Amino acid sequence: MAIGANSAVAGPDADTLAQIREHALSGNLAFELVESLTTEVGPRLAGSEGDARAQDWAEARMKSLGFDKVWREPVEIPHWKRRHERATVLGEYAQSLHISALGHSIGTGGPIAAEVVELADLAALKAIEDDRLNGKIVFVNHRMTRAINGAGYSIAGDIRSQGPSEAAKRGAIAFVMRSAGTDSHRFPHTGNTKRLEGVHVIPSAALSNPDAEQLHRLLKRKPDLQLQLDIDVGFDGTTTTHNVIGEISGRVPGSGIVVLGAHLDSWDNGTGAVDDGAGIAITMAAAAKLIERGQRPRRSIRMIAFAAEEVGLLGAKAYAKDNAQLMERHVVGMESDFGAGSIYAIQTSARGTALDALQPLFDALAPLDIAFAEGGYGPGPDILPMRDDGVPWFALKQNGIDYFDVHHTADDTLDKIVPQALPQQVAAYALATWFMADSQIELRAPADL
Amino acid sequence: MAIGANSAVAGPDADTLAQIREHALSGNLAFELVESLTTEVGPRLAGSEGDARAQDWAEARMKSLGFDKVWREPVEIPHWKRRHERATVLGEYAQSLHISALGHSIGTGGPIAAEVVELADLAALKAIEDDRLNGKIVFVNHRMTRAINGAGYSIAGDIRSQGPSEAAKRGAIAFVMRSAGTDSHRFPHTGNTKRLEGVHVIPSAALSNPDAEQLHRLLKRKPDLQLQLDIDVGFDGTTTTHNVIGEISGRVPGSGIVVLGAHLDSWDNGTGAVDDGAGIAITMAAAAKLIERGQRPRRSIRMIAFAAEEVGLLGAKAYAKDNAQLMERHVVGMESDFGAGSIYAIQTSARGTALDALQPLFDALAPLDIAFAEGGYGPGPDILPMRDDGVPWFALKQNGIDYFDVHHTADDTLDKIVPQALPQQVAAYALATWFMADSQIELRAPADL
Ligand SMILES: [Zn+2]
Ligand SMILES: [Zn+2]
Repeated sequence: MAIGANSAVAGPDADTLAQIREHALSGNLAFELVESLTTEVGPRLAGSEGDARAQDWAEARMKSLGFDKVWREPVEIPHWKRRHERATVLGEYAQSLHISALGHSIGTGGPIAAEVVELADLAALKAIEDDRLNGKIVFVNHRMTRAINGAGYSIAGDIRSQGPSEAAKRGAIAFVMRSAGTDSHRFPHTGNTKRLEGVHVIPSAALSNPDAEQLHRLLKRKPDLQLQLDIDVGFDGTTTTHNVIGEISGRVPGSGIVVLGAHLDSWDNGTGAVDDGAGIAITMAAAAKLIERGQRPRRSIRMIAFAAEEVGLLGAKAYAKDNAQLMERHVVGMESDFGAGSIYAIQTSARGTALDALQPLFDALAPLDIAFAEGGYGPGPDILPMRDDGVPWFALKQNGIDYFDVHHTADDTLDKIVPQALPQQVAAYALATWFMADSQIELRAPADL
Repeated sequence: MAIGANSAVAGPDADTLAQIREHALSGNLAFELVESLTTEVGPRLAGSEGDARAQDWAEARMKSLGFDKVWREPVEIPHWKRRHERATVLGEYAQSLHISALGHSIGTGGPIAAEVVELADLAALKAIEDDRLNGKIVFVNHRMTRAINGAGYSIAGDIRSQGPSEAAKRGAIAFVMRSAGTDSHRFPHTGNTKRLEGVHVIPSAALSNPDAEQLHRLLKRKPDLQLQLDIDVGFDGTTTTHNVIGEISGRVPGSGIVVLGAHLDSWDNGTGAVDDGAGIAITMAAAAKLIERGQRPRRSIRMIAFAAEEVGLLGAKAYAKDNAQLMERHVVGMESDFGAGSIYAIQTSARGTALDALQPLFDALAPLDIAFAEGGYGPGPDILPMRDDGVPWFALKQNGIDYFDVHHTADDTLDKIVPQALPQQVAAYALATWFMADSQIELRAPADL
């Protein structure tokens, strides 16, 4: 298909889009869904019993909401488990600190204690070339900054993903960090780390923000303070989880697939309301609102409840791999995975005439206070593997000013969601989905077609 | 002394009071003190190792701040200890809930499980006359209201203190309650319960607000849901703690004693920053600011760091008992125990001409935005035993709008204190203390003199 075709084969007309928008704004199916998932299932760490229940929940919901086809695709994952984690300051200032082991950490094999070397950031850690970290516990004490688009997470997240390996390379026996979080509550923020090839793994954990400040104050008083860690976490083999997929089958077979989705797994400490129960609810409700209208789109729509995002995008990688021969028929991918705050912008990989062809969609989003924005960080994480295979993407940018207050903590629970914020997002996903599904518009650059 | 004496023997003049106010407003000794106590000692449950360190801290600080005499008075207390506490929903919605055992609770002796009966409030519990609570876990689900003066705490606190016994009387095997707290974070609010004479003690715990809402939602889906509790807490004998007292000796022996203070103990989960490290810091700093001026007051000033307030005002009761023969010479008592928010009003037990005599003090407080207010709930808790022995009191009312967000939780840490809010309070305590110390004013009603 030539790119010039876009202007001739326009997407849905403005009236249809207006009807979809108004219908999607009615009621609050998304809140009902996230209330159900977080209450009935609760925490659902990939590979856990809760994860299995979440898959049952998603499949049952997709069926009752009227998807044409519902199926699961298996995803093999290493099975990581948290048993306990304790940090204790020893000596004259003895007290316990709140920590959470980082995903992929190993345990300490009983209590271990060592002096602590405090560093300001990842650069300071990487700059160390002598042996001063040998046998020590590294403490990276960077305070994450607050931003509507979560910009502070790239620095704080890098500390989490790279810090343990960089500390291990330099002889440290353990790694602790100030949480990648913007709150001031005693909830440590967990999250995954990356294992560097050829570097041994050391126990690693996040301190809550108040506990990081406490440790900083204690180290000013007593630089040779001994910190004891007693962490029992780790892998025990592999297990199978599943992507759960609901399809609204298009009326023209082979004409394309539109993907919208979110990840079904959560960390183990909270009930995964903002990360990412909200995303599951919003995208499932958006698809359901389209089903309710009773019109079959030209292309097929797949709502994917991705597996095992938190432990390394494992479901998304499996989907792209197992559906490799279908990737060129995936016309767009979009994911809701940034909490429950309202959407203020749409970004996309489309450029040139492909971008021009999206103008009617942008016009339909305008009454929702959503504007097209250039650039951006790319799509939601579970769309990255498809994007790497050439699939175009939308990113519906949410206000995440408070997202990192509860992200990956025990405090990620239903009460953090403002129910009234959800219908706007459902409407945006319904519009973006239908616009690409009931059309022949192609977003790939001409050279890719 | 006749009450008419008040007008003749006025307290300090306006210039002196202005100088005290300005001096007390300078610097921020109070923040330095609360930073030190919460960092170096941390949690200090009555009878714990932290409590002993806190006494050493208070004694050392009082000495270095220049009090004339510093001593400890022993207080015998039952020793209660928390080991672990877990709540788990069993069955198809299996998940864990965040709880904290209430002070004076007993343990469950391993996991116990039962059906849950949800009740709206204490009245609903007390109204039950049949056997429907027999063998059940009672769940009182009252949401505490937010108020500047903490008014919502009287209802919520009554549930905590009376609920366990009322549930036990009716055959319940355990008691859980929605936390007496105004936040929406997953921190349960602990606190003391009262044991009713002749009623057996049952395990009792608070759920965090989000967990109480979760349990409520689960019970709507499954009224016969089984909740498992595994609580290991309890008493192991008695131990000795101490009130720590610093005195500024008056120049006229026998002319009276002015008491200001706060409680040194905290709950075990947080570092007791707002409850009551702030109070210790404010009142100790107020006394220190008076010492710095180098003038000896007519009467003696006692700054008391009360022991074991959280477990039943045990230090305050011991002080009143052990100093019974001195109570009539105590001319006023005041305590800071409502967090770190600024003071907006002064209340007092004084009436009639005694109240009139306080007008110069009220005038001196006015530039701090503190006004006299009638009525009120009485003085800080540790002044209650003296009040019951006839000692007049001041209550310097603080803005407690967010006090019950962190009260009795792990989240009661230094970061919750706004340093800039403290000097105003130090100045208010310094003024109120000096006004009564360097004067012959009597606040007792004529009949009491
Ligand atoms: Zn996520
Ligand atoms: Zn208190």
